[in-house]
Amino acid sequence: MAGPSYQALPGFRDFIPRECAVRNYLFETWRSVARRCGYVEYETPILEDTALYLKKSGGELSAQLFRFEDQGGRDVTLRPEVTASLARLVAEHQRHFPKPLKWFEIGQCFRYEKPQKGRGREFHQFNADILGEAGPAADAELIALAIETMLAFGFVAGDFVVRVSDRHAWIGFAKHHGVPEAAVPEFLNLIDKIEREKPETLGQKLATWSLTLEQVRSFITNPASASSAYLAIQQDLTARGLGDFVELDLSIVRGLAYYTGVVFEVFDSRKSMRAVAGGGRYDTLVATISDGAVDLPATGFAMGDYVIRNLIEETTHAAMQMEVWLQRNAAACDVYVVIADESKRGDSLKLVTGLRRAGISADYPLNPAKVAKQFQSAEKSGARFALVVGAEYPELKLKILASRTEESGHADEAVVWLTERLQQPDGPLLA
Amino acid sequence: MAGPSYQALPGFRDFIPRECAVRNYLFETWRSVARRCGYVEYETPILEDTALYLKKSGGELSAQLFRFEDQGGRDVTLRPEVTASLARLVAEHQRHFPKPLKWFEIGQCFRYEKPQKGRGREFHQFNADILGEAGPAADAELIALAIETMLAFGFVAGDFVVRVSDRHAWIGFAKHHGVPEAAVPEFLNLIDKIEREKPETLGQKLATWSLTLEQVRSFITNPASASSAYLAIQQDLTARGLGDFVELDLSIVRGLAYYTGVVFEVFDSRKSMRAVAGGGRYDTLVATISDGAVDLPATGFAMGDYVIRNLIEETTHAAMQMEVWLQRNAAACDVYVVIADESKRGDSLKLVTGLRRAGISADYPLNPAKVAKQFQSAEKSGARFALVVGAEYPELKLKILASRTEESGHADEAVVWLTERLQQPDGPLLA
Repeated sequence: MAGPSYQALPGFRDFIPRECAVRNYLFETWRSVARRCGYVEYETPILEDTALYLKKSGGELSAQLFRFEDQGGRDVTLRPEVTASLARLVAEHQRHFPKPLKWFEIGQCFRYEKPQKGRGREFHQFNADILGEAGPAADAELIALAIETMLAFGFVAGDFVVRVSDRHAWIGFAKHHGVPEAAVPEFLNLIDKIEREKPETLGQKLATWSLTLEQVRSFITNPASASSAYLAIQQDLTARGLGDFVELDLSIVRGLAYYTGVVFEVFDSRKSMRAVAGGGRYDTLVATISDGAVDLPATGFAMGDYVIRNLIEETTHAAMQMEVWLQRNAAACDVYVVIADESKRGDSLKLVTGLRRAGISADYPLNPAKVAKQFQSAEKSGARFALVVGAEYPELKLKILASRTEESGHADEAVVWLTERLQQPDGPLLA
Repeated sequence: MAGPSYQALPGFRDFIPRECAVRNYLFETWRSVARRCGYVEYETPILEDTALYLKKSGGELSAQLFRFEDQGGRDVTLRPEVTASLARLVAEHQRHFPKPLKWFEIGQCFRYEKPQKGRGREFHQFNADILGEAGPAADAELIALAIETMLAFGFVAGDFVVRVSDRHAWIGFAKHHGVPEAAVPEFLNLIDKIEREKPETLGQKLATWSLTLEQVRSFITNPASASSAYLAIQQDLTARGLGDFVELDLSIVRGLAYYTGVVFEVFDSRKSMRAVAGGGRYDTLVATISDGAVDLPATGFAMGDYVIRNLIEETTHAAMQMEVWLQRNAAACDVYVVIADESKRGDSLKLVTGLRRAGISADYPLNPAKVAKQFQSAEKSGARFALVVGAEYPELKLKILASRTEESGHADEAVVWLTERLQQPDGPLLA
């Protein structure tokens, strides 16, 4: 047999049901932890005016955009990220909401990159932001969400760490050592490359400001380098019992030009080069996007679906938690109605309708089939129960598929009976 | 103050929190009813090779596409609909799944149309399909889902009706009256226009096949015109108690060229020209898309978010159901922790963390504020309860915001206490 003649575009994913269930597990966990922490959900368009991204970046655009001209001659771009749209949205609507705004979003972004393991041309991203509050209490509350998100996926102490830095610490360092103010962005870029660039190159560059690599390195590792914002965040998170998840790491600057203060990254502790999430303060973006019409301090982070999924699958306890969820949520139905006597098909359809209406996921064979074959269908569907409609209808038999035990009941009481049975833990999960 | 300098593109929506909550209500209702009825979720890419849509349509493309060349020189299109992608996906993966496939999808589609009230350039669509079963039992099961979806939104008998037709009835009619086989597609197109085209034009065209408008009209209204598939569907749905929601209407042919048999539309009964959902059999599409590699009969329907939302808002009982859901689900939190004694901020953060970890949505003031102001924040957040941490900590006061009554409890028991209280119905909903 020839293969299918069309496939998804390179870097784009087809979500067959099991993959879609994994996606839903990520989405539902993100949504549920954000809501528990008092964030409300918003969504922005997937397609935006390219000028929005130009404005955010100060005129420079990434080469990795899905950018085109629409039928109306507009220069448009599939969003590579969400924060520019959020700033636009907030500038327009913020006056209707009490401050601070605690908003989150779960959606797809697009970047024309070379597809490789762990990276596609589309990905899903969880974005959480607090707008309208400039102090470190907002950064702490945001970092708390990042930590709670990791805990919600089943990660524990030792699996991950949040490395927190503050651009203000570096700005203070630069000032103290006489780096000219105009050179500070260049200096920050250098710090950002400190783990990737050759020491000689770094040393040469630093020498132009009469600095040495040793001075910079010792500032990074010196606890006294912590900014007052960092200390406040550490104290806040310690009160929550989350202090041990956070550490100072001034080597983090984050490449994007728009960060203005505290920045942080959630790292996989075992493969320490891998960031699972990252973010920080961007106090000037809303003013930039709105041409100064609205000035709102902001802090936020994003977590993509590729890395977190890989990390879950590599971490036994997190992987098991996901597997249990998938078994519960990826089954085609909970109850499979076996029509053992075809003359009872009408009664069976009525029964199925009643179960579904009561919130019970129920399925049945569309065509007459041998009872053994119907039981196979029931097993394949992932159902916990097979409800058998036979000649003795309205008396019904309930087969518990995991334990192969059997009960009897009356069709009129099927909803109550099945609802009760589904709340008991004798399904395949605990068998 | 100047307005924001950028807006969403024409026809694209920003979902501020309330709008996002409405979207989530539609999504969660669609998802929940589909799962109850034994359908599993999948998702396909938003961007596809344009050749996929060319192939589906037999070479003709709609003018209303977001179509462009990507950086790799590929001719790509933002999906205008999902069924072409589904056929591609199923052709590739179907051998791994027992038949029939009962699959659903909730996602965004894009069409470059003139934006107007009730229509944008992007919209969300609920797609449900049954693949691998050619008989009317599959059509009945699919129509049952369409009906259950309407019922799940709170619509009742009298609000809507499902009009069912069958292309085979018309093909039989054409054959019986000597319309040449090659002219049947043209004949079906004519029937499709019967309510929009001028009678004279219709009559002239029909005369070329020695037919009159009266013959066609009387066939439409004659119950004896029903196909055997229609009769089987009617019988099946009647057994489920859903027979009254369905009626024969042979004036429905549906424009799209790929339908092959039973077709149907869900109509708003009061504004009867408005279709809320539509679909039918497309038994040849999977073979077309896969160049004959996989041949799988199929039936499916789609429901868009614009029309169903308008209909909900215009229908008092459905609108009230949505409003109740929104009150429950759009609040920023359930419990607002009021920090009446700032020296207890650390204890308050610990308390908030404990509540959140137990699944209770909790928020608190990021900065010191007067107690009265904190209560205002609690009210604005939509919380049911304000939990007051004062000098008497670990003793806590719980204010029920709707009834303005008060209880006391201990911080160590806060999780159990609040969990129990949240299950009682004295929140704003029932006050």
